[in-house]
Amino acid sequence: MITTSEIYAPIQEGLAKFEEQLRKAAEGSNLSLESCLDHILHSTGKRVRPAITLLASKFAGKHDENLPILMASAVELLHIATLIHDDTVDKSDTRRGQATISSLFGQDVAMLVGDYVFAKSATVVCDTNNVRVIRLFAETIMALATGELREIWEANDWEQPREKYFSRIFDKTGSLFCTAAESGALLSGAPGTTVQAMKEYGYNIGMAFQIVDDIIDFEGDPTEVGKPVGGDLIKGTFTLPAMIALERYDSQSTLKTLMDAKDEASLKKAVEYIRSTQAIQASYDVARDFQKKAIDSLTPFPDSPAKRSLKGIAEYILERRK
Amino acid sequence: MITTSEIYAPIQEGLAKFEEQLRKAAEGSNLSLESCLDHILHSTGKRVRPAITLLASKFAGKHDENLPILMASAVELLHIATLIHDDTVDKSDTRRGQATISSLFGQDVAMLVGDYVFAKSATVVCDTNNVRVIRLFAETIMALATGELREIWEANDWEQPREKYFSRIFDKTGSLFCTAAESGALLSGAPGTTVQAMKEYGYNIGMAFQIVDDIIDFEGDPTEVGKPVGGDLIKGTFTLPAMIALERYDSQSTLKTLMDAKDEASLKKAVEYIRSTQAIQASYDVARDFQKKAIDSLTPFPDSPAKRSLKGIAEYILERRK
Repeated sequence: MITTSEIYAPIQEGLAKFEEQLRKAAEGSNLSLESCLDHILHSTGKRVRPAITLLASKFAGKHDENLPILMASAVELLHIATLIHDDTVDKSDTRRGQATISSLFGQDVAMLVGDYVFAKSATVVCDTNNVRVIRLFAETIMALATGELREIWEANDWEQPREKYFSRIFDKTGSLFCTAAESGALLSGAPGTTVQAMKEYGYNIGMAFQIVDDIIDFEGDPTEVGKPVGGDLIKGTFTLPAMIALERYDSQSTLKTLMDAKDEASLKKAVEYIRSTQAIQASYDVARDFQKKAIDSLTPFPDSPAKRSLKGIAEYILERRK
Repeated sequence: MITTSEIYAPIQEGLAKFEEQLRKAAEGSNLSLESCLDHILHSTGKRVRPAITLLASKFAGKHDENLPILMASAVELLHIATLIHDDTVDKSDTRRGQATISSLFGQDVAMLVGDYVFAKSATVVCDTNNVRVIRLFAETIMALATGELREIWEANDWEQPREKYFSRIFDKTGSLFCTAAESGALLSGAPGTTVQAMKEYGYNIGMAFQIVDDIIDFEGDPTEVGKPVGGDLIKGTFTLPAMIALERYDSQSTLKTLMDAKDEASLKKAVEYIRSTQAIQASYDVARDFQKKAIDSLTPFPDSPAKRSLKGIAEYILERRK
């Protein structure tokens, strides 16, 4: 399997410029805001989304290489803004072992800092001067907010069809992966077929990513100490493992009875029940289907370092729990 | 004095299309979101900002009249988004007698609905296809968030200079008035001098607006039942009346002692003290200076219905308490 440093190799220079661009995002703002932003911008995540933007720009001829770098920064800033607001909604104290803005400065400040970062991301996209990409970006912010709202509004509804789950996780997660890939291709001046292929890659990788996230919630995430196993179901969020368990592994309605009770103790038992079934494995199979589609969307392109990296990211998506 | 219907007369058609455009903003979203949005979009405010955008577009030759209408809708949507987040920060139950989103659906939903409306406003601006205006708009969102953050961070600092207050209220309020006017002129294809004049009009009208708001907080707003008189100072927000009272009407340091105590009882006494001085009147004088500058910025233009309306809005800004 490709190593992570091999994945990042074709975009090493771009990623360095991206980090520089990201640092600039804090500059020129209010002093207290700068220190707030410093705290979040430099707690480096894996930078998966910006990497996808940069890689997706490598399938076209000569173009202004600064444009995908700007876009990569905007995509990461947008991701960071959603994390700030998500942590505020979830009242999370830490993320990846670091104190959240809301735990450090309060929920009100966190909401407003999130607003600032949303707006900052939009100004960075404006620097691309590409109205189609700017519009795509604004629509993505709408999708992300809708996804989080749907998670609240569609909670505790164990009757919702699979399509509702898929469209919800697209809003919540897939949309940004999709935009990351599509905009990278668009800003490289790639032809329509390439843009479409990258969009499909982004869509499928994003869906696989969120399904794996939903599985990890049942398996327990070793990197998130103190996070309860099955926390999603306990707060009413209906995800794929629970759906599959209800559909295929509940002939006695044991699980349904527990879930319908809706109290915490019953839901905790429901989590244990789901973990004991093959639903987790079956959910991985669904994620693998999306992964496969992501890789298939790259078929038209000849072998290249960027193609190998995108395939590598698709492979890693399913290995995240390790 | 010009009547309000005379003010709105030159843009009647534009305002009707604006309302239609605003209604469209709720369409096509998630069903629960639509009902949330219906609640806010149709609780009609005075539509001052969109009126300024439409009027500012009337000082140029032939142009696509749809562009200022789109911009007016975006400006109002942005204003609504900030109100949703402000009510969430302030934990306000009502605004203009109507239940707030946060009181109806909870703070988390309010934050996310606000995010959605921010993003929606940005997509509407994208429809203008004018990158300069889109960028101006994104920068305005940053300023608005910064203004609210500064209100939190600069609280209880009675030493801050007048300029800090002015720049804070520009961020919080002036920036959107400024953008409303400037973008209207820009989208009408007006020459640079006209754009600059409209920008100055917007800046000065916005500053006057916020100063009057800060005065009303000390006078008590008859339209906001149950809102405590002097609520700003009690929560630590240092505004012009308190600044002037400390500077000019506190030779015995009575007020300073009360304010330095910082407990609610002392601050309530401080509010009474300020109300008993000429600081309120002196604050009106400052607002009047900004009002005058707003009107002066219109001097280069020949008499027209739009010019009379902009002057009329400037006059009404100081009459809001009645």
